[in-house]
Amino acid sequence: MPLVRIDIVKGRTAAQRRSLGEAVHRALVDTLGVPAQDRFQVIAEHEANELVYDRSYLGIKRTDAVVIIQITLSSGRTLEQKRRLYRRITENLAYLDVRPEDVWINLVETARENWSFGLGEASYAPAEKATA
Amino acid sequence: MPLVRIDIVKGRTAAQRRSLGEAVHRALVDTLGVPAQDRFQVIAEHEANELVYDRSYLGIKRTDAVVIIQITLSSGRTLEQKRRLYRRITENLAYLDVRPEDVWINLVETARENWSFGLGEASYAPAEKATA
Amino acid sequence: MPLVRIDIVKGRTAAQRRSLGEAVHRALVDTLGVPAQDRFQVIAEHEANELVYDRSYLGIKRTDAVVIIQITLSSGRTLEQKRRLYRRITENLAYLDVRPEDVWINLVETARENWSFGLGEASYAPAEKATA
Repeated sequence: MPLVRIDIVKGRTAAQRRSLGEAVHRALVDTLGVPAQDRFQVIAEHEANELVYDRSYLGIKRTDAVVIIQITLSSGRTLEQKRRLYRRITENLAYLDVRPEDVWINLVETARENWSFGLGEASYAPAEKATA
Repeated sequence: MPLVRIDIVKGRTAAQRRSLGEAVHRALVDTLGVPAQDRFQVIAEHEANELVYDRSYLGIKRTDAVVIIQITLSSGRTLEQKRRLYRRITENLAYLDVRPEDVWINLVETARENWSFGLGEASYAPAEKATA
Repeated sequence: MPLVRIDIVKGRTAAQRRSLGEAVHRALVDTLGVPAQDRFQVIAEHEANELVYDRSYLGIKRTDAVVIIQITLSSGRTLEQKRRLYRRITENLAYLDVRPEDVWINLVETARENWSFGLGEASYAPAEKATA
């Protein structure tokens, strides 16, 4: 169910970009119980001057390797789950040599009935008969 | 009021991309009562490896022709309206030879006061005098 | 905390694009009290046929110079604050010769605990000890 948008500055290889996506997805699976197959991601590269980030907000030193991750997901996760997600994404990305300072995450929560994974169905909504 | 983001893999013509946008917009008009002129869309093409989708999540067989549609709209629609929207988008896209399995939709709901269509006005908010 | 996505038609210079981002950020700082360093923006250019907008919805005459601004921010701002934000963005952009008719804004509100600005921390959530 999550839709993950990853925005980065140009310079990584296709393999590196794919690895970024995998690292974020594994964290969603491991900390939120997202199904392993429920992976939908848009990875977009930008010129350095089109991805604007502050180099020290909150005392965190960021570089052009910054990874902006915006995840739209169903609402209902607890704060503790969100904390685990942030930590795990950051740990997984560290294995790819992304500095923890360069991991930027935002969650947008939406209703479970707001997803259609194909065939024109409300994939996660209560059974249609129930609304008849 | 909706802002529609359509993300696809490179390969369609400009005319085909425009038709995708029209098909989604007509569904919004016909099922949710969105004004016909209220059309604002960002259609973005990606390399195949930058648009990541699962090829069989929920048993639905997707291909590189997948159309990822994320619609930000005012909250308040019923589940039945959303079901009609998903079905209609999928039907409209079928006329463009997009397989129903390749139609992926997510809704993000926001308040009516969260839109400015120009001139710096809160276009859908209660009249300004009411807040004086 | 805001994540600002600015979508425009190709044609502006890098300096002009950067100025658009600065104008929007200053409005957030001045009207909502967003910290001056809290600036994170993705500015994306599109072919004219990929950024679809209505040329007269609500009687407002738009051109290809339209600036589509989608801001994800923490919820809790009043309608009056939002009005001031819309006005100020539009005023700031007017100094850059963007017509007020060409300024299009949408806000997406999210919880304060939904942000991680680095280091895997929930930057704005209540202190971790409080949840132990």
